[in-house]
Amino acid sequence: MTLTDDLRAAVGERHVLSDPELRAPYETDWSGRFHGEAALVVRPGTTDEVAAVLAACRRAGAPVVPQGGNTGLVGGGVPRGGEVVLSLGRLDDVGVPDLATAQVELGAGATLGALQAAARAAGLDAAMDFGARDSATLGGIVACDSGGVRALRHGTARARVAGLEAVLGDGTVVRRMSGLLKDNAGLNLPALLVGSEGTLGVVTRVRWRLAAPPRRRVAVLVALDSLDEVVGLVGRLRTEVPSLEAVELLLPEGIAFTCEYLGVPSPVRDAAAYVLAEAVGAQDPTEELAAVVPDDALLADDTATRERLWRLRETLTEAIAAAGIPHKFDVGVPIARLAEFLERVPPAVEAAAPGSRTFQFGHLGDGNVHVNVLGPEPGDEAADEAVLRLAAEVGGTISAEHGVGVAKARWLHLIRSDAEIAAMRSIKRALDPDGVLNPGVMLPGTASPAASATTHL
Amino acid sequence: MTLTDDLRAAVGERHVLSDPELRAPYETDWSGRFHGEAALVVRPGTTDEVAAVLAACRRAGAPVVPQGGNTGLVGGGVPRGGEVVLSLGRLDDVGVPDLATAQVELGAGATLGALQAAARAAGLDAAMDFGARDSATLGGIVACDSGGVRALRHGTARARVAGLEAVLGDGTVVRRMSGLLKDNAGLNLPALLVGSEGTLGVVTRVRWRLAAPPRRRVAVLVALDSLDEVVGLVGRLRTEVPSLEAVELLLPEGIAFTCEYLGVPSPVRDAAAYVLAEAVGAQDPTEELAAVVPDDALLADDTATRERLWRLRETLTEAIAAAGIPHKFDVGVPIARLAEFLERVPPAVEAAAPGSRTFQFGHLGDGNVHVNVLGPEPGDEAADEAVLRLAAEVGGTISAEHGVGVAKARWLHLIRSDAEIAAMRSIKRALDPDGVLNPGVMLPGTASPAASATTHL
Repeated sequence: MTLTDDLRAAVGERHVLSDPELRAPYETDWSGRFHGEAALVVRPGTTDEVAAVLAACRRAGAPVVPQGGNTGLVGGGVPRGGEVVLSLGRLDDVGVPDLATAQVELGAGATLGALQAAARAAGLDAAMDFGARDSATLGGIVACDSGGVRALRHGTARARVAGLEAVLGDGTVVRRMSGLLKDNAGLNLPALLVGSEGTLGVVTRVRWRLAAPPRRRVAVLVALDSLDEVVGLVGRLRTEVPSLEAVELLLPEGIAFTCEYLGVPSPVRDAAAYVLAEAVGAQDPTEELAAVVPDDALLADDTATRERLWRLRETLTEAIAAAGIPHKFDVGVPIARLAEFLERVPPAVEAAAPGSRTFQFGHLGDGNVHVNVLGPEPGDEAADEAVLRLAAEVGGTISAEHGVGVAKARWLHLIRSDAEIAAMRSIKRALDPDGVLNPGVMLPGTASPAASATTHL
Repeated sequence: MTLTDDLRAAVGERHVLSDPELRAPYETDWSGRFHGEAALVVRPGTTDEVAAVLAACRRAGAPVVPQGGNTGLVGGGVPRGGEVVLSLGRLDDVGVPDLATAQVELGAGATLGALQAAARAAGLDAAMDFGARDSATLGGIVACDSGGVRALRHGTARARVAGLEAVLGDGTVVRRMSGLLKDNAGLNLPALLVGSEGTLGVVTRVRWRLAAPPRRRVAVLVALDSLDEVVGLVGRLRTEVPSLEAVELLLPEGIAFTCEYLGVPSPVRDAAAYVLAEAVGAQDPTEELAAVVPDDALLADDTATRERLWRLRETLTEAIAAAGIPHKFDVGVPIARLAEFLERVPPAVEAAAPGSRTFQFGHLGDGNVHVNVLGPEPGDEAADEAVLRLAAEVGGTISAEHGVGVAKARWLHLIRSDAEIAAMRSIKRALDPDGVLNPGVMLPGTASPAASATTHL
């Protein structure tokens, strides 16, 4: 029996896509930067079918790339060439939130937007948000330990996962869905799977911890004349506004670029940097916020103004994408060295990739900076290396929330010791002994299985 | 060179204890239930010395039992017979909290009490508390993923660990101390180590996430006439009191036993159950609490009354210990089946161990029930099995926060599949290939290395 037959038997003929036209949407990431041909695209509809797909691929020695909403930014969810793409899109059921525990069960293919809607309908809050909400799926969010704009208060996916079901590379089904806050019986396999980028197992189902509904939401946009002032403000916001939920950084280049893209005049005065903060309290947090920010800050306590402020932040990604294929880095920097990092990035990029355009923005409250560089060809990684080395040099991380993927695997050594990477490899071998899951992702030099899947089709 | 020589070279002669009298405090757990003779007790003073101790033990094939404050309740931190006890007690430094990040670094041997004092001195809050605060150490807290009375709001140790340093069984030093909220570069080894009970590595240093200082603290004690009412009240407290921090259950047998032990009359009316709840808000949470509890509830917003209420809860453990060596189970039960569980435990224990006395109390808000049974001999585990089977049957866990240890290893299969346990074993082999770390703990049947340490002394 060929792999194709085997997979058809597992999931039904119509859910095994071999036609190049049908495969195409699964082969290129949304940014257009990462692309590879898939041997096949398989769309299982249940956890058992996921297990059957993995078993078939193990038998055939065929490498597998798990894929959610295909909104990844590091090439970890699209084929490199010849793999089977395992799309979780059909596992998209969304349960009814359980009010007693404030938790909800979802299939790995459910989108963040669907989770948010279900939470809202139950009078609760999904406790996570980011721009790709209507495409990104829970499986990918868990596999990457996504964060987004509200992680400052609600934590990353790791903090929201109350239960997890996954199929490991060796076929083991891990199922821990009781939703107990305290359950320390045995090694915590779910905790290991969160952020493992599909290298150890395929997440099939998630039990998500919701939050109390936001009662009063107030945003504020502050213009500041130096990056040092930015860091000082972040400190005051964190200590003096307990209901603080988001602190975003915008720089003048980004605002100008966004306004040009939208065809609108700049809504803010000239400044060195802008901070967009939001507080969400049971009581009205306006006073707390007002006490911390300068007098000329723009406080927005009505929905329309708030949304206008956030659009300024969220449209930048879109404006950049419209201008070309950016190199995107998602680094984390300790607050104490944030101003230094932000100042050193533009000259470092200019030296590595002369004539390119650099944009920095991100989730300031947790030191998560997104650096986007327009200019260098996809294959030219001089700027990538410059930015990642700088993040490592200031004691930060090369990946805050996007993951390592294929984009940064070769630089993992900048922040993890050889011994730590060796320990990760040992774990990978332990749970995916045949090496079928996402070879080449995260761990440098994890080879694809010797036989290419295409030879068995 | 013998193992003793090797260890003396690693940590200095005076920190290798072979004298039976000096070893004794390390050989029996505080409850008196678990006891075993140690080949030696070693007290390293630095992370490098911990690594050297593990290397020496690997060379000699000597099994190692890591030990913190020796307040464990499942026999995971005392020798079973012939192991080297690795005491982390000398790694007890406590850093100064960093106000910008609200984090503090501590050695694994620092106590929870020391952490609380450091946090208070900096105007912050340790965000964790339980009875053994002055003995339990951070290393043990992390290794067991401890919870305690405030986990409802602040999470278990897992949620508080902002950074971790550990030496794995194979000698790898894992060091991730940048304290970034978002850092998903590579497999999350710290997340795997939390709750691993010393089977994969030895925690040497912790970076702890502190919380904003509690401003206004109010406790309430409520007498209720049925267990169903208890579950209803917990639901209302959770949804209507956002600043809720603890919800504890007390039962009449426990209150009577405590009052008898203290020689005081019962401070409460007769009832089927009592709930002790505490809310901690930036604003005064009294009104929120008062709106949810019955009119005859005892609200305590002054420190003296609050402490009296908490003493009622905390003294029970002491009263039980004074009456004998209890069998202690720490199970987790989904809220929806909590009343059923609480009702079924006493007859199940009576059937398994006739004439014994059963006490149930615990952290109701997160479904964590502590069952203490007085009567059966330490070796008689019929009651243990009855309680653990019941917890599994209602969809709960056999260990909420104490860990599996040696006490419950044989029952792990009640809630984890054979395949999941096999996956845990694979991970154990990957990170501790020589099997020197805590054999017999957590994973059923992990054998000690063939050669007993004593033969090499």
